[in-house]
Amino acid sequence: MTEAIRIIGIDPGLRRTGWGLVESLGNTLRFVASGTVSSNADCDLATRLMQLHDGLAEIVHSFRPSEAAVENTFVNKNAAATLKLGQARGIAMLVPARAGLRVCEYAPNAVKKTVIGVGHGDKGQIRMMVKVLMPRATFDSDDAADALAIAICHAHHRAAPGWRMAAE
Amino acid sequence: MTEAIRIIGIDPGLRRTGWGLVESLGNTLRFVASGTVSSNADCDLATRLMQLHDGLAEIVHSFRPSEAAVENTFVNKNAAATLKLGQARGIAMLVPARAGLRVCEYAPNAVKKTVIGVGHGDKGQIRMMVKVLMPRATFDSDDAADALAIAICHAHHRAAPGWRMAAE
Repeated sequence: MTEAIRIIGIDPGLRRTGWGLVESLGNTLRFVASGTVSSNADCDLATRLMQLHDGLAEIVHSFRPSEAAVENTFVNKNAAATLKLGQARGIAMLVPARAGLRVCEYAPNAVKKTVIGVGHGDKGQIRMMVKVLMPRATFDSDDAADALAIAICHAHHRAAPGWRMAAE
Repeated sequence: MTEAIRIIGIDPGLRRTGWGLVESLGNTLRFVASGTVSSNADCDLATRLMQLHDGLAEIVHSFRPSEAAVENTFVNKNAAATLKLGQARGIAMLVPARAGLRVCEYAPNAVKKTVIGVGHGDKGQIRMMVKVLMPRATFDSDDAADALAIAICHAHHRAAPGWRMAAE
């Protein structure tokens, strides 16, 4: 009898950080919860990072996942945007690490390949496939759907061969 | 009788984060301590961020500064380097914010203008001027010297006009 592994996927962003929890048991996968932690754009940067920290810490404390996965991505727009994302991503990795979780990183095309089947695709396709793979999944934002996709990707890559989606 | 304001300056970096503490009383400035928190490059990213967090949290806990200043900079080399710096910078801003400190940001040229007198200059000039301004200052790395320069910059900009360096 193997125990279910509860995984938190995190899609970091300074304005909105998505999170999604799934449970992987043997070769089945179950939706647990998902949501979005926002920071207040009117506050200074340190306060916004603390808002993300406190929001994520509350989720980790409430749902007690045992492993974490974070997307390893950067925006190409400009250095200032990349720096902003990096700051949010630092918090997204720190929170589960401080809670004693192993934190894995996945490239965006690895996440897409796991969920959509190919290494490219838009947010609409990710939303749709997360619903196909876990019909009971709900999410309040694209970031939450992406976070679920990241958690699914980790469930797939951490597990033994023969892993498949659960028929819910 | 005004109370001395203890300021921590932080120069963030994933490999090495410099920190420097100064005390500002009226229009005098006093060196308190400085140092470098390193992360182990052999560890995974989440663990390295936790090492930076724990090191900085210990400094803040031990020295109990009341205000913090962090340089607002990004490397131009490439997006991956900027993302790395952003992650470390997220931690550098989170730690003092969680301790209840106001965290101010300064552009590199503002720091240089305060310490060297002009908005450009190399690390050697910063080291030298930190020693001129605070002869008792010691630092174990360029990052620690930069952190002291950031703290000096904040002491200057937070204070009333007429502020000047202390003759130690």
